[in-house]
Amino acid sequence: MDKKFLIDMLNKVKTDEIDIDTAAEKLSSISYEDIGYAKVDHHRSLRNGYPEVIYCEGKTKEQIAGIMEKLLEKNSNILGTRLDQQSYEYLKERFKDLEYHSMSRVMTLKVKEIEIKGKGEIAVVTAGTSDMYVAEEAAITAEFLGNKVIRIYDAGVAGIHRLLSKQDELRRCRVVIAVAGMEGALPSVLGGLVEVPVIAVPTSVGYGANFGGLSALLTMLNSCASGLSVVNIDNGFGAGYLASTINRL
Amino acid sequence: MDKKFLIDMLNKVKTDEIDIDTAAEKLSSISYEDIGYAKVDHHRSLRNGYPEVIYCEGKTKEQIAGIMEKLLEKNSNILGTRLDQQSYEYLKERFKDLEYHSMSRVMTLKVKEIEIKGKGEIAVVTAGTSDMYVAEEAAITAEFLGNKVIRIYDAGVAGIHRLLSKQDELRRCRVVIAVAGMEGALPSVLGGLVEVPVIAVPTSVGYGANFGGLSALLTMLNSCASGLSVVNIDNGFGAGYLASTINRL
Amino acid sequence: MDKKFLIDMLNKVKTDEIDIDTAAEKLSSISYEDIGYAKVDHHRSLRNGYPEVIYCEGKTKEQIAGIMEKLLEKNSNILGTRLDQQSYEYLKERFKDLEYHSMSRVMTLKVKEIEIKGKGEIAVVTAGTSDMYVAEEAAITAEFLGNKVIRIYDAGVAGIHRLLSKQDELRRCRVVIAVAGMEGALPSVLGGLVEVPVIAVPTSVGYGANFGGLSALLTMLNSCASGLSVVNIDNGFGAGYLASTINRL
Amino acid sequence: MDKKFLIDMLNKVKTDEIDIDTAAEKLSSISYEDIGYAKVDHHRSLRNGYPEVIYCEGKTKEQIAGIMEKLLEKNSNILGTRLDQQSYEYLKERFKDLEYHSMSRVMTLKVKEIEIKGKGEIAVVTAGTSDMYVAEEAAITAEFLGNKVIRIYDAGVAGIHRLLSKQDELRRCRVVIAVAGMEGALPSVLGGLVEVPVIAVPTSVGYGANFGGLSALLTMLNSCASGLSVVNIDNGFGAGYLASTINRL
Amino acid sequence: MDKKFLIDMLNKVKTDEIDIDTAAEKLSSISYEDIGYAKVDHHRSLRNGYPEVIYCEGKTKEQIAGIMEKLLEKNSNILGTRLDQQSYEYLKERFKDLEYHSMSRVMTLKVKEIEIKGKGEIAVVTAGTSDMYVAEEAAITAEFLGNKVIRIYDAGVAGIHRLLSKQDELRRCRVVIAVAGMEGALPSVLGGLVEVPVIAVPTSVGYGANFGGLSALLTMLNSCASGLSVVNIDNGFGAGYLASTINRL
Amino acid sequence: MDKKFLIDMLNKVKTDEIDIDTAAEKLSSISYEDIGYAKVDHHRSLRNGYPEVIYCEGKTKEQIAGIMEKLLEKNSNILGTRLDQQSYEYLKERFKDLEYHSMSRVMTLKVKEIEIKGKGEIAVVTAGTSDMYVAEEAAITAEFLGNKVIRIYDAGVAGIHRLLSKQDELRRCRVVIAVAGMEGALPSVLGGLVEVPVIAVPTSVGYGANFGGLSALLTMLNSCASGLSVVNIDNGFGAGYLASTINRL
Amino acid sequence: MDKKFLIDMLNKVKTDEIDIDTAAEKLSSISYEDIGYAKVDHHRSLRNGYPEVIYCEGKTKEQIAGIMEKLLEKNSNILGTRLDQQSYEYLKERFKDLEYHSMSRVMTLKVKEIEIKGKGEIAVVTAGTSDMYVAEEAAITAEFLGNKVIRIYDAGVAGIHRLLSKQDELRRCRVVIAVAGMEGALPSVLGGLVEVPVIAVPTSVGYGANFGGLSALLTMLNSCASGLSVVNIDNGFGAGYLASTINRL
Amino acid sequence: MDKKFLIDMLNKVKTDEIDIDTAAEKLSSISYEDIGYAKVDHHRSLRNGYPEVIYCEGKTKEQIAGIMEKLLEKNSNILGTRLDQQSYEYLKERFKDLEYHSMSRVMTLKVKEIEIKGKGEIAVVTAGTSDMYVAEEAAITAEFLGNKVIRIYDAGVAGIHRLLSKQDELRRCRVVIAVAGMEGALPSVLGGLVEVPVIAVPTSVGYGANFGGLSALLTMLNSCASGLSVVNIDNGFGAGYLASTINRL
Repeated sequence: MDKKFLIDMLNKVKTDEIDIDTAAEKLSSISYEDIGYAKVDHHRSLRNGYPEVIYCEGKTKEQIAGIMEKLLEKNSNILGTRLDQQSYEYLKERFKDLEYHSMSRVMTLKVKEIEIKGKGEIAVVTAGTSDMYVAEEAAITAEFLGNKVIRIYDAGVAGIHRLLSKQDELRRCRVVIAVAGMEGALPSVLGGLVEVPVIAVPTSVGYGANFGGLSALLTMLNSCASGLSVVNIDNGFGAGYLASTINRL
Repeated sequence: MDKKFLIDMLNKVKTDEIDIDTAAEKLSSISYEDIGYAKVDHHRSLRNGYPEVIYCEGKTKEQIAGIMEKLLEKNSNILGTRLDQQSYEYLKERFKDLEYHSMSRVMTLKVKEIEIKGKGEIAVVTAGTSDMYVAEEAAITAEFLGNKVIRIYDAGVAGIHRLLSKQDELRRCRVVIAVAGMEGALPSVLGGLVEVPVIAVPTSVGYGANFGGLSALLTMLNSCASGLSVVNIDNGFGAGYLASTINRL
Repeated sequence: MDKKFLIDMLNKVKTDEIDIDTAAEKLSSISYEDIGYAKVDHHRSLRNGYPEVIYCEGKTKEQIAGIMEKLLEKNSNILGTRLDQQSYEYLKERFKDLEYHSMSRVMTLKVKEIEIKGKGEIAVVTAGTSDMYVAEEAAITAEFLGNKVIRIYDAGVAGIHRLLSKQDELRRCRVVIAVAGMEGALPSVLGGLVEVPVIAVPTSVGYGANFGGLSALLTMLNSCASGLSVVNIDNGFGAGYLASTINRL
Repeated sequence: MDKKFLIDMLNKVKTDEIDIDTAAEKLSSISYEDIGYAKVDHHRSLRNGYPEVIYCEGKTKEQIAGIMEKLLEKNSNILGTRLDQQSYEYLKERFKDLEYHSMSRVMTLKVKEIEIKGKGEIAVVTAGTSDMYVAEEAAITAEFLGNKVIRIYDAGVAGIHRLLSKQDELRRCRVVIAVAGMEGALPSVLGGLVEVPVIAVPTSVGYGANFGGLSALLTMLNSCASGLSVVNIDNGFGAGYLASTINRL
Repeated sequence: MDKKFLIDMLNKVKTDEIDIDTAAEKLSSISYEDIGYAKVDHHRSLRNGYPEVIYCEGKTKEQIAGIMEKLLEKNSNILGTRLDQQSYEYLKERFKDLEYHSMSRVMTLKVKEIEIKGKGEIAVVTAGTSDMYVAEEAAITAEFLGNKVIRIYDAGVAGIHRLLSKQDELRRCRVVIAVAGMEGALPSVLGGLVEVPVIAVPTSVGYGANFGGLSALLTMLNSCASGLSVVNIDNGFGAGYLASTINRL
Repeated sequence: MDKKFLIDMLNKVKTDEIDIDTAAEKLSSISYEDIGYAKVDHHRSLRNGYPEVIYCEGKTKEQIAGIMEKLLEKNSNILGTRLDQQSYEYLKERFKDLEYHSMSRVMTLKVKEIEIKGKGEIAVVTAGTSDMYVAEEAAITAEFLGNKVIRIYDAGVAGIHRLLSKQDELRRCRVVIAVAGMEGALPSVLGGLVEVPVIAVPTSVGYGANFGGLSALLTMLNSCASGLSVVNIDNGFGAGYLASTINRL
Repeated sequence: MDKKFLIDMLNKVKTDEIDIDTAAEKLSSISYEDIGYAKVDHHRSLRNGYPEVIYCEGKTKEQIAGIMEKLLEKNSNILGTRLDQQSYEYLKERFKDLEYHSMSRVMTLKVKEIEIKGKGEIAVVTAGTSDMYVAEEAAITAEFLGNKVIRIYDAGVAGIHRLLSKQDELRRCRVVIAVAGMEGALPSVLGGLVEVPVIAVPTSVGYGANFGGLSALLTMLNSCASGLSVVNIDNGFGAGYLASTINRL
Repeated sequence: MDKKFLIDMLNKVKTDEIDIDTAAEKLSSISYEDIGYAKVDHHRSLRNGYPEVIYCEGKTKEQIAGIMEKLLEKNSNILGTRLDQQSYEYLKERFKDLEYHSMSRVMTLKVKEIEIKGKGEIAVVTAGTSDMYVAEEAAITAEFLGNKVIRIYDAGVAGIHRLLSKQDELRRCRVVIAVAGMEGALPSVLGGLVEVPVIAVPTSVGYGANFGGLSALLTMLNSCASGLSVVNIDNGFGAGYLASTINRL
């Protein structure tokens, strides 16, 4: 509950500017409004310059448009994840500046400049080229949240020297996002090379006994490298968001 | 490869202080020694004041003693995880200052003061009292790595108000470690309350369809809260280490 | 076996109104007929004003129409679940008053007013907007079975204050249905807020390690909140039916 | 937040009985204290005559004794689940009236008469005799929470007539708890026989492809009988608690 | 190896009708030919009047046609399983007498009367109407293999009396095939009602935690009824074939 | 319901030997008693000379003794499965003729000669010697139920010729029980060699990715051999019982 | 690091052919270039006459064309796996000599003769005809890598004699690739017949409890035949590549 | 069937040395005897100098002793795997030269020198020290089968440089066995470093989401490195045997 508002209200009670019943009513409702979901989110957005985020999967294109219009009233940048091509085309007609990144299925709408808030760089590394759709979701998210991003793609552990040749770049970063499908061994190797937090993102890339990303997920959870944690399969957004949160510390 | 060493060596070749074969030999071997495993580890330990860590499970008590003696030569603090009571009693006779935390099965041996390196506080929160064995592994690890730790135990989501009453403490921290077994919902709620990174640690506490911690693990991986990542089931050490890595940034 | 019928039959035997062989035949067959499936079902429907229910998945549109015609002869309200759009359009031409709820894929056909049988209100709460398709199946089912339903949607645990602001409404209800996908933590929190039965419905909403709803299902089964039970993934109908059964007690 | 307390406080502010800073402090803190965890629990216990419950697994015998002493100060009946024999013997010396039900590993300590709160009877039915350890946990829990319990054991579906012969007793109850391991088919059959809520409890009884109770759990979740819900494997306490909650409605 | 053929060959060697090298060649090859796959199958077909069976899934319509033509040369009745509609239409033009059972996706081509070989009747029972596609595969298979089949459909355990009313029919049969999806409890109940072998067929009917038939499969494997065995999910053909094998004994 | 009893009762009603209320009472109760579990079992036992069977796991030695005493009153042979050594020693003192088969943990108590009821022989085949504990449970069960059993042990598919050399014996049998752990391929090969029913029994023999018998279970369920069905992992009794049921047909 | 290059460089430093800074630069960079990913691959290709391999799944047809053009510059034969029909047609227009094997979805482009490098023959054996799509991927891969391949298709264990009749051919080979879906028992039997390495390839052929190839995978991992190892489900390429690696030894 | 034997027999028939019935009898039986299991195995042992192998798990110490005595009659070296300490002590008294490797639980009994049959060296590499129990089973097996073995232990991917420093040794070998628990990434990295076959052995080392070795197993199956195959979890023997088979080629 906002102390300033509370004291203000009590002062008004004392000076008879407001009667007790009205004050009681306001105080009991405001206690929730003040910490209600939407409000907290707005605060977060306003305070940090964070864009609003829409998870588009399972929403109709009309619903997405409706949410966007409401957000634009607050002059907020908008990031949308998991948007299909067809919905994008519908939205494009309504929001002229809308950009679409088809590989990662991310849309971005900028109404103001993105301010750099991250204190250092974030590396996004993939094991293979087919993991790029997840990596780009992470990278675009991190950039949209105000970070500089270094992309190192197709640097899987079966050709370990390719990764080693990038050590300098990697050690310069404050956070590393490691994206890998199939056997998912990349984060373990990275965890041994750098001393900063490594966010491991398993992807569903592969076939057979990868069971939709389960193999990479288990690999990452069982990594014997320290300083490593894991997000959900294909959750590039989550990794980008978390990296941004760390990079602002 | 260390440039300074390399130029120095080339200078010696030019000035005949060293013959070409010897130089070639040194250069080809040093390239690995310089980045070899043990060395990197020593550097890490010396540079950061990080203690050496021994994962005791699957090692005999004699093996552990041997490793400890070698580490003590380098005047390093030592942290040992997953040490059973019986091995502790054997080690206690050899290392007089050894401390043992029986709940978390962690041993610590301090030969010098732990220097505070973390820039803020780390919160360790548990859902139930039975999750404390994992939480303490995380907390002791974080403390041993030079962090201040706030413990908030038994604050599970089925009594949500207990958790809410700790919001101020939680929001003051730079990293939050959320430890939970059974349904594992705690990190999701915490992720909505704080704006700093949340490290989720599933525990194997529970029975029946918790399948050794799988239920809590899946819950955490599927969390719809942003800024949250997950470590292996019962991996308190990993969470404490990662939190420390983040808190030093 | 119906005692009255039995005594009546024995009296007829005694008074020679019926010969022993015929009586024996009738008694041995009636014992099953009297408790045979269809009959019991009709009784249930007539006695309680319960509508007849058709699970449409895996039935052809002609089969559904056939069943409906037979049920209409008994002047019964009809509830159909998991009906696809195409079958609805076919049925619409035959049954003019048919209504279709496309989000939940439920059809309803009212031939008489629904009588309120539930003694209190039933709350249907969802974690996210994408869980609404299941929640609506539950809500419409409960309403069709004669209950008042309160809908509280998009009140997931990552924004816990939104849920807390609804405590008064929730505590007024006699049964709470909690619908959640992804991490499925909502029922645990609800179980701690209310003292009435909570029916947890996992949904298949999510991706990656949610494994088609398994994560939410396990979360709910392992809940440490008391007074909570679980139905199958996406089984809104089952939750609505059970809630109605409880609300009539 | 309690309206009466709030208005009282505002009145005191107005009449200068309390200064504004103190009032603001109290109002912002009380909002949580008033709904804090412990308090709510005490209310629940006091209001309902519910006993306090201790989940003993993973707690030392000294911890359990400590909790019990604290609860006895409030003159509360105590129910403890999953208590091993050895801990019981330790506790027995401290709490003379302690009773132990070795089959279900439940302890009960009565300091006052249990008041009947349930409006009807609760049936506890098992498929086999080996499921009794779970059934007894459910039955004792329900009795301790103030309900009359009917036990029908060893009435599995492979000998269906045994179950049918108990139809009258079953139909008289307000709630049915169905406990079964192995194939777990009992609740489905019961669901077709009665019109009241059926709480299905899978047990870990069996071997091979029962995978620790998974087979029975899945059977129950997939039941085509309406009005049925499921609790965790071996969770007799949860079933007894939920049945009691329903029976008080 | 066929003794008659062998002795005949040895006689020819003795009487110089055939030279030793040729005989050795023939004997070493015939030993496999005689027991080679196709031949054994032909013998089986000829001796038993068994039709030839084609598993059509994963074969092109041209391949199926080719196999059929080859089989027709031997004047064999043909049974084809898992044939899609499109392939059927292609085949229909080539084989005028081809019949197609669209529900079970079975095709049959009779070039001669089916001789009744089974000594008794085989009952095919389903839990629900949606399990009929598997049941029909079993029933048609059994009929084509020369058995009389009794169909009892939609007799699931949630309406147990419906099943009980069919006890006389069931007890008259020599083998019972029990087909069920969802919770899969039907075979357990049947196993308690009859004294003949029960073949349990899990189906993939259901949703959510049925995991493509896994729930029904586990239920059946864990049945506590004796005299029951299980075939693969949706394997109606296997059940029909096995039932026929038993019924010929 | 027993027709003879029914007609007798109706005659008594007609001739006033019994009054109508008493008759009604008896008829309504007898209908269940007549088909009640125990009774049906006794009938089965008496009619077939089947022994009574006790599944000893999860029963105390006192409980087993109690059941045995009750069964001996009916002069029934007794078969007990999954009896541990310690319980056997307790029982041995009470039942002098008790025999114990320690490998299969089966006990047998014969009070009368076992009559041969099976029409042919039953083969019990194992893949390895370590599968014998399950095979013996099957074999002893089948023998106790009145069948001749042929044992063919250690005939796994990795040494296929060993199995082939037993073809004559195998083809002479009316039923084949195939017991295998690890890869569980034996039943598939057997299914191709014989034309009689093959009952596949997966065992938990193996390690690593056999997951307690799951690998063998799945192998057997997916067998492409016809005429094969599967029982639960390690369920030797079930296989022996089913084989006996088939062999009596 | 290449010693010859290193000594050459040091000599140039000594003789002033190169200045120290340039030498240091070259030495520090070359250490990675020399062992960098691409280079190693080129060496492998040039040295062995191995073709370049493109895993086409998840790549656009334009990306594949781009990679192919780059590879053709080096005059390399190209093997592409998992190429869909549509992409093939696009590529066919650009690369006239491109060949497509539609069953296995493999493309091959030969710019020079394939040199036989394998020392013996490789057998590719399948259990069923439906496993051929994987077997052909293995066979074409092995042939393209310079091996003679013997194909033995449709030789599953349910008709064991068919396989036995091929023993001579099998024993002549240096490596055996065993491809099987459903129960996956073929490699175990083969492992007992031959004394050379057997590479087991599970396929996803089957339905129900084969769970996308899991059943065959587990069967093969648990094989009790020695000298056998397993690759991923449907991984024909991996088997062909490994067989080739072994056959060159 | 042995051609020479066959022609000999036919000659005898022709020259009346043997009558036709006897010849037919012999020919039909010999075809299996000649290829029977035991015989083939003896041949294998005699021809290759391979030791006999006993898988001790699940065998009593008396059974193992019995088998050993029988094997010693044939003057064969003996290798026993998975032998517990207690059985070893029993056997030690009977077989004086018996050696026991307690870490790997392997016993070896040499009655004659092991002849080197492998054409090159076999490397056995582990990720951690705790994987050594499996690695030693592989190494001892390979040595006992006549191979030179290089051990490289504790070279996991989280400290990648340690592994890289061993490249020369690794590239010199003809086969590499890669043993790893936890995340199991070692074989993927090795597969990229060497051009010889890599045999991946997952171990059950780890905790939590490693699920008894499943995580490492899936990692290895999904490896994107070519030339790699996998054996069962903890199957050091299988890897050593296969490596030996390859090394003899």
